[in-house]
Amino acid sequence: MKRLNIELKDHRYPIVVGSGIIGKAGAELSGIGFDSAPIVITTARIHAMHGSPLMKSLHEVFGPVRTVMIGDGERYKSQATLARIYDGMFKARADRSSWILAFGGGVVGDIAGFAAATFMRGIPFVMIPTTLLSQVDSSIGGKTAINTPHGKNLIGAFHQPSAVLSDTEVLKTLPGRELASGLYEVIKCGAIRSVSLLGYIERNLHAILECRQAEMEHIITAAARIKADIVAMDEKETGLRMMLNYGHTMGHAFEAAGGYRRFNHGEAVAWGMIAALGYAREAGMLRQEESERLLRLICRVGKLPFFKGISINSVWNALKRDKKFKAGDIRMVFLKRLGDAVIVNGIDAADLRSYLKRFLSGGGMVDQLFFDSDADGRSG
Amino acid sequence: MKRLNIELKDHRYPIVVGSGIIGKAGAELSGIGFDSAPIVITTARIHAMHGSPLMKSLHEVFGPVRTVMIGDGERYKSQATLARIYDGMFKARADRSSWILAFGGGVVGDIAGFAAATFMRGIPFVMIPTTLLSQVDSSIGGKTAINTPHGKNLIGAFHQPSAVLSDTEVLKTLPGRELASGLYEVIKCGAIRSVSLLGYIERNLHAILECRQAEMEHIITAAARIKADIVAMDEKETGLRMMLNYGHTMGHAFEAAGGYRRFNHGEAVAWGMIAALGYAREAGMLRQEESERLLRLICRVGKLPFFKGISINSVWNALKRDKKFKAGDIRMVFLKRLGDAVIVNGIDAADLRSYLKRFLSGGGMVDQLFFDSDADGRSG
Repeated sequence: MKRLNIELKDHRYPIVVGSGIIGKAGAELSGIGFDSAPIVITTARIHAMHGSPLMKSLHEVFGPVRTVMIGDGERYKSQATLARIYDGMFKARADRSSWILAFGGGVVGDIAGFAAATFMRGIPFVMIPTTLLSQVDSSIGGKTAINTPHGKNLIGAFHQPSAVLSDTEVLKTLPGRELASGLYEVIKCGAIRSVSLLGYIERNLHAILECRQAEMEHIITAAARIKADIVAMDEKETGLRMMLNYGHTMGHAFEAAGGYRRFNHGEAVAWGMIAALGYAREAGMLRQEESERLLRLICRVGKLPFFKGISINSVWNALKRDKKFKAGDIRMVFLKRLGDAVIVNGIDAADLRSYLKRFLSGGGMVDQLFFDSDADGRSG
Repeated sequence: MKRLNIELKDHRYPIVVGSGIIGKAGAELSGIGFDSAPIVITTARIHAMHGSPLMKSLHEVFGPVRTVMIGDGERYKSQATLARIYDGMFKARADRSSWILAFGGGVVGDIAGFAAATFMRGIPFVMIPTTLLSQVDSSIGGKTAINTPHGKNLIGAFHQPSAVLSDTEVLKTLPGRELASGLYEVIKCGAIRSVSLLGYIERNLHAILECRQAEMEHIITAAARIKADIVAMDEKETGLRMMLNYGHTMGHAFEAAGGYRRFNHGEAVAWGMIAALGYAREAGMLRQEESERLLRLICRVGKLPFFKGISINSVWNALKRDKKFKAGDIRMVFLKRLGDAVIVNGIDAADLRSYLKRFLSGGGMVDQLFFDSDADGRSG
């Protein structure tokens, strides 16, 4: 079991990573000061798969626990689901002294966190993320949100959790593509901040893809530490935190252009990093061998869905809709070296579009070699 | 024109009070750093009464201004109206760099502030409150909220404005009961914190009730200063800020028991202060002459609606539903002296109920003398 203490300006909280932590949640959360039962927000699927040890543990310590079930999937991160959560909380007689436990992946964490941010102007919440992606990414940083018909995450708040409990055991039930999706975010953390994390993943990829305990604890803790450190320096995302968007500006556009079906989030970020590597290499920002080292690692994780049928226009339109993308002043994150990211301002739109066009027509310009020659790579 | 600078832990902003400030809003807001047109959230009524000088001033400085109109009245402080505001903002192509100008009374400020708190995880907003109540109370403190079918202000966020512009000129069009409602909140500020403000109101009540410029500037600035100082010490309402609830715990219950029709907010707070004075006097906390001095001032403001037909049960049930009222641990604010409030813990529920029963059966126990003998008093 590993324990990180996150120190923000006005708030501190622990991230606890370990095998079977779900079954000890009651004692753990009582230990950090909670003295009444939470309202658990989860999905029927997660509850059926992993709910028993959690509920038993909470019940033993806090007594009867109320649960609000929400639908499974991104489309349920909506105002309608939010209203359902509020309603469930009122029916459970929640008040200012209540707290929420978000139990599930990124969708559950984002919407349950937003409910906590806004219920009676903010009550505490704890996250038990059940995917690798949410353990290393969305559970850290305090971003909560819902989607609207106008786009994803457009309504939300910054609200930091009181604790994050990441159980490595539940990851064993994740489909391979979901595990890989999270791993790409871990690789991103290494790419922007820690060449030693990249080295660790290179050396232990096989064990990681098999979800071995010690290796998972190591990478989750390392990625969480990196993200938390950057967040602590820029809680409200005014500048520095943009580094965490490495691979995300183009990645989000790929994800949207693929209709959110072709690529999952991590896969889109992986492609976004690959595209950023190519751009940085062309611009002479990054040395060829460093670029290739990261590219090789990304490709070893598994096969990425291809770009066939995705046009430069659909990608470019998605890019222009991105709330972080300002046509007149394009800022993106690139690597100077592995482990050292830099925010580049004033990127030329025509130049970027031309690069992306070549990138797409080359199918991501990744030599097939990287996909097929490595015995460690999962087959997608 | 008077100017207060509010210094919070992470945020500072000006409150500008003066006659005709609405017509200088563009220059004023440009002066504090805004460089694009706001999205104005207002009601058709306010827009028709006071919109022209504001829109002209904004247009001169920022160019075309988009406006989102919402319904007038507490029942529009709803999730449906909020969704309408978001939708209007998306249609106006609002993004992270947009800002909101809330132009209206407390309802507009609360819901527009909540929209600002949650639109893309928070954008800046400016308030131009158009009632005395919102100028001295809801525009200060950063509380934003909407109502739900389960109660008022149950969903919300803390989000501080970037500026508050309080125009004394618009107050001249307020109905007498609404002006009085705001004045009771000013009196509350004096009661808990400034005997000199109470003295000023006593000496200048006539001019105040006629909305004379200098006197209005004085009391708005004084009340805003008091509220802002208390808020600065306790931004998220964990303790000290409770002092601002003087008269409010019982007041809210009176307001609810009257179906939100009998008493407006300030009138209910006035009755709440009167009830608190009686309780404090009985408990020996406050000297008789100080209690009578405040009672006399409250009564000089105008006639308060009576309690006829409002039962102890309806008041008590409303009190128990109050989110700040915990049956096992009743905390309320009382005066030790004029200008010096104290939070009292562990109030006995049976004792309080018995007091309220007597209070109601005595019709508020206020000698008719106070209502009728004073020539300064407005007739309700």
